[in-house]
Amino acid sequence: MTDRSPGNLASVAWAGGAIEIVDQTRLPGELVILRLETVGAVEEAIRRLRVRGAPAIGACGALAVALALANGELSAGGPPAEFAAALDPITDRLLSARPTAVNLEWAVRGVGRRVTGAEAGERQAVALSAALAIIEADRSSCRAMAMHGAGELEGKHRVLTHCNTGSLATCGDGTALGVIVELWQRGGLEEALVCESRPLLQGARLTAWELARAGVPARVLADGAAAWALRQEMADAVVVGADRIARNGDVANKIGTYAIALASAAHRVPFYVVAPTSTFDLALNDGSSIPIEERDPAEVLYLGASRVAAEEAAAWNPAFDVTPAGLVTAIVTEHGVARPPYTASLAALAAAELASEVGSA
Amino acid sequence: MTDRSPGNLASVAWAGGAIEIVDQTRLPGELVILRLETVGAVEEAIRRLRVRGAPAIGACGALAVALALANGELSAGGPPAEFAAALDPITDRLLSARPTAVNLEWAVRGVGRRVTGAEAGERQAVALSAALAIIEADRSSCRAMAMHGAGELEGKHRVLTHCNTGSLATCGDGTALGVIVELWQRGGLEEALVCESRPLLQGARLTAWELARAGVPARVLADGAAAWALRQEMADAVVVGADRIARNGDVANKIGTYAIALASAAHRVPFYVVAPTSTFDLALNDGSSIPIEERDPAEVLYLGASRVAAEEAAAWNPAFDVTPAGLVTAIVTEHGVARPPYTASLAALAAAELASEVGSA
Repeated sequence: MTDRSPGNLASVAWAGGAIEIVDQTRLPGELVILRLETVGAVEEAIRRLRVRGAPAIGACGALAVALALANGELSAGGPPAEFAAALDPITDRLLSARPTAVNLEWAVRGVGRRVTGAEAGERQAVALSAALAIIEADRSSCRAMAMHGAGELEGKHRVLTHCNTGSLATCGDGTALGVIVELWQRGGLEEALVCESRPLLQGARLTAWELARAGVPARVLADGAAAWALRQEMADAVVVGADRIARNGDVANKIGTYAIALASAAHRVPFYVVAPTSTFDLALNDGSSIPIEERDPAEVLYLGASRVAAEEAAAWNPAFDVTPAGLVTAIVTEHGVARPPYTASLAALAAAELASEVGSA
Repeated sequence: MTDRSPGNLASVAWAGGAIEIVDQTRLPGELVILRLETVGAVEEAIRRLRVRGAPAIGACGALAVALALANGELSAGGPPAEFAAALDPITDRLLSARPTAVNLEWAVRGVGRRVTGAEAGERQAVALSAALAIIEADRSSCRAMAMHGAGELEGKHRVLTHCNTGSLATCGDGTALGVIVELWQRGGLEEALVCESRPLLQGARLTAWELARAGVPARVLADGAAAWALRQEMADAVVVGADRIARNGDVANKIGTYAIALASAAHRVPFYVVAPTSTFDLALNDGSSIPIEERDPAEVLYLGASRVAAEEAAAWNPAFDVTPAGLVTAIVTEHGVARPPYTASLAALAAAELASEVGSA
């Protein structure tokens, strides 16, 4: 079930009654598969970014509901209301691990609804099947996004990206990184520029590693150098992922994204967001109500166990920022490409997703 | 001669026939004074950023000419043409160490001219006196910049800065950081936000250390978070230094400065540059002819001896970028504040500097 040959790296998988993840904090030094056997272990893995990437943590959260039923942390019995009450603290615990990406909430609550409505005797099977369906759907979504995105970016030779949005961050080939690899395979791409993505260096550690595995020529740069690269016409497109997209098209993504979007606009370099519709949060009018996770200042002040900042220094460590819709050229999803005005185009794509869910149900 | 009590840290000094510097690569962990006894040692120290900051490397280069005469690497004898020919390779060697900051060239060539024109028997004394005069003038300049800058920024409560521009980077209290500390001492400042300044973390390592010594409340942030901080009105002014300023007001400074300037403009936060007139290069029409140093990719790929990026990754590592004059609110110098249009205002300040040199000669 967990084929992890190069090019087929399962960041999250169900194996023998537990969840297996690639421990992303150990990459690129070591490829360690971690077995998560309790909801607490899943929560810890999400919180500490052992598993990260909006779609991947969604998948992990979905599997955690199945895990809780499989290992007895959650009893499958009782009428829906009683079962829902027992499920609530597990849901809360999982969602508290990372507040910004909406996919986690979408996946955990989605599985929760299906399971709650099922017969007591079928709940464990329903949970697993719903979670695996989410993984399968994400895999298909990644492929579809790669196709739509590569079509959209045809003719772009040098792209700049931020953070990690590849197979580690998803259940398939990735979001933005899937598009980049697809462009490379079609023969048009010359180079990918990868922002290192401080403080946790997902770009330098994970994206550079994935691009090397895929054979894509890439160079890492300090996040502060991205604007200078765009000014010097070193990239003809920026492609990033997303953790939550509001109804008006405002995009929450890894801290540093907004600065790149401003530079893209200043230099008329198109700025693309690639994300599945599960990243949409159409209940939010705009990005101002997206909760922005602030993480431990130690992530900025230390690198691993080494203190890099002055001993007396404090730090501010927001994990995400919000790029206003006005800076976003297009949003590539599994159902096609949304363009401004996003209020209409995102609603149409969300409707397409709903239709496909109904169709497959 | 080298009083290094807190608040009076001599980043560069002449002591007992050699140059002493604070080894900035060892900070903030250790305060190590390094003794440089040859031109080669000075070149190495500048190249490896043991001494850094445009005014400080200018001072170090100036003293290196005196050092070469003191230790016999350069013979003081001969007519001017012959002496100049012998000085040339030493000048070239020093200037090759860091091409972007113009202060190094200004200082080394300035001392060189005075020494070449002097009597053979007086050259060693003239060199030392000219170099010490540069140090003394920089110390006064820092004080004057702090006064002009604090006047200009009166009423600003939260400032954001980048890289290190304090006593380590100069012979006095600093450029941008001198202004920040002066603002704090006048009682108006609440907090300084300090970009960590990847790849070499001069903000996190050096600026946070200097601000702590001065008692200024400060928080470090990832460079990519600066735009997000400005969007959230966490700073009401940006204050940075400069390594070279072209005639039209384009400013070369630490990589990442341009991205911050774009964000400042987007959020109407004033963007101040603080630099002595020795940073001006009025022979350049604009920033496009400023040479931008590209440093070893290892600075991005490693942190100290630890590889942080994927093993296969390459990197692009420009040390500086150029902020166009149109994004600069004002340039604070020792002779006053230049405002747009800079072609006129910078020329006027350069003339003031020339007059003060003539007056003091």
